[in-house]
Amino acid sequence: MVVQCSTVTSAPRTIDWDDDAQAVVIIDQTALPDRLELLSITDVDVLVDAIRRLAVRGAPALGAAGALGVALAVHQAQDEGADRVWLDAAIERVRRARPTAVNLAVGVDRARARVDEGPQVVLAEARAVLEEDAANNRALGERGAALLRELCPDAAQFRLHTHCNAGSLACVEWGTALGVVRALHEAGAVAIVYVDETRPLLQGTRLTAWELGQMDVDYRVVVDAAAASFIARGDVDAVVVGADRIAANGDVANKIGTYPLALAAARAGIPFVVAAPESTIDPSTPDGGAIGIEDRDAEEILALDGRRLAPIQAKGSNPAFDVTPADLVTAIVTERRTVRPAAGETPA
Amino acid sequence: MVVQCSTVTSAPRTIDWDDDAQAVVIIDQTALPDRLELLSITDVDVLVDAIRRLAVRGAPALGAAGALGVALAVHQAQDEGADRVWLDAAIERVRRARPTAVNLAVGVDRARARVDEGPQVVLAEARAVLEEDAANNRALGERGAALLRELCPDAAQFRLHTHCNAGSLACVEWGTALGVVRALHEAGAVAIVYVDETRPLLQGTRLTAWELGQMDVDYRVVVDAAAASFIARGDVDAVVVGADRIAANGDVANKIGTYPLALAAARAGIPFVVAAPESTIDPSTPDGGAIGIEDRDAEEILALDGRRLAPIQAKGSNPAFDVTPADLVTAIVTERRTVRPAAGETPA
Repeated sequence: MVVQCSTVTSAPRTIDWDDDAQAVVIIDQTALPDRLELLSITDVDVLVDAIRRLAVRGAPALGAAGALGVALAVHQAQDEGADRVWLDAAIERVRRARPTAVNLAVGVDRARARVDEGPQVVLAEARAVLEEDAANNRALGERGAALLRELCPDAAQFRLHTHCNAGSLACVEWGTALGVVRALHEAGAVAIVYVDETRPLLQGTRLTAWELGQMDVDYRVVVDAAAASFIARGDVDAVVVGADRIAANGDVANKIGTYPLALAAARAGIPFVVAAPESTIDPSTPDGGAIGIEDRDAEEILALDGRRLAPIQAKGSNPAFDVTPADLVTAIVTERRTVRPAAGETPA
Repeated sequence: MVVQCSTVTSAPRTIDWDDDAQAVVIIDQTALPDRLELLSITDVDVLVDAIRRLAVRGAPALGAAGALGVALAVHQAQDEGADRVWLDAAIERVRRARPTAVNLAVGVDRARARVDEGPQVVLAEARAVLEEDAANNRALGERGAALLRELCPDAAQFRLHTHCNAGSLACVEWGTALGVVRALHEAGAVAIVYVDETRPLLQGTRLTAWELGQMDVDYRVVVDAAAASFIARGDVDAVVVGADRIAANGDVANKIGTYPLALAAARAGIPFVVAAPESTIDPSTPDGGAIGIEDRDAEEILALDGRRLAPIQAKGSNPAFDVTPADLVTAIVTERRTVRPAAGETPA
């Protein structure tokens, strides 16, 4: 197990393959916004751990992590002379590292299908996943920006609301929901972005705020519970979020706290737009009720950075995702189409 | 300025008058749940500071603090030989310590009306405010419990959801929303209470969890953003919250994060009940749009206990309250009546 850390000054890809080190390289998102650190991972179980503790997170980035995880497992098996049983088990550990995000399994399955063709083919397949993600997100961002102009014809300067981090840090690069913001910002059309802090792990405060600062977009971090009232006050033109899994009927699983945003947007009559790659749509999941929701350790709520917040004997419940019903979803934007579930369209 | 701290072992009243010390005594809620500490306050500006930094908070407790603040100012003016100009200004500082909670001003005004009758009359009036609050909350709790049985005839064991702290710590004793829980619990009718952590100051995690633990009620702390999905899943029979101000039309100002709970309850078809004393109803406020919402320092969001969470240059926006429109409020329960705004009834 080799984990090498280094502090870097410019932002590299969120996840990539390092040919020299034969390693998966990721930005350690648990160190942001204090430090931009890279992890160079040469052991598949270190990668599984990094996925579990959210050092790499976000549906598209997990797709890349899944594919690169298979490539890493194949290299490691070759280096260590491990057999196919070991390899299959290692790949399965990557695939099951987090249960809700469909992209992780999709990325694993795509690279795994090439295992019999040898390490170089597997690695090439994984790299293709990364390149496609980068290209898809740029296309998705442009499509989302065009859609928002259509949905909000009176908004010259957009006031947007987002939740969690669906930015470049959630992807290989560029971002999904923040890719839409990025595309609008490049056209000088973003007035402000309201960023939910996104408890318990504060991806909004730590990651999205950091990304928007890097982009030089004006933003305000707000507590998750305040989102609905900014929307009710008329301070927001549209809500843009990512997704971890989209069911065939258009129900959307995303970070806990997305559903109340959709309720607030529907009440205020503003668009609720989901920006996610096609790979997030899971035709085998008929609706939100069929999506398994990851329950994480309650200590994530009851303590912060080792400091106890709650009484010693307190109990918590910590679902990581919620399901927004299709009728509240104005549009799902992918790299190649726009689906309007609230108007009765279904993505699969 | 004399502030005396002591650690105590049993729970006294949240706020009271100490005859020996001629002091306002409060439980320092910023020290909970780690330590139960009392502050003995003999200077009116120390009380103003305690109100501002939420050492004492909650609408009914602020009513008591307002009345006792006037009594303290009168005593202090007498002790220090200060004139009426000083006294009036001191009382006004208490009255304006926090802008949204109507009870603070109501408590101040009630005691201030007796100032010309001398210190003992003012103190007696303030004490009457405390006694009435204690009695009112018991009546309100019983009324709320009866209402919930009526609204949820199938719930033998209630699964309730609450936000912030509307417990004994928000009052002189007993509690409003938690007073309803307490009344149901005394009848053995509470299965579980979901407690929103209530960012940014975590009154749910720190105070409500502590109170429910003291009451031996089963509970789970959840992030505010998860509230809506517990309700959507069918895990909750009714939402019960307090209020900081209720407008004449039934719009309810309460801790930020209350409005999305009401949206979720309406969507799920479960009751959204507001438990608050009559003094919370402000006939001079026609509707929620007329309620001034306190904007607090964004550092409350961007850092926790001195630990920076956000990037150094991050900006935040931190409204302390939101407004739940009357049409989402199933019922407002006070010590003497039940008003049903969603059915078109108005409290004033």
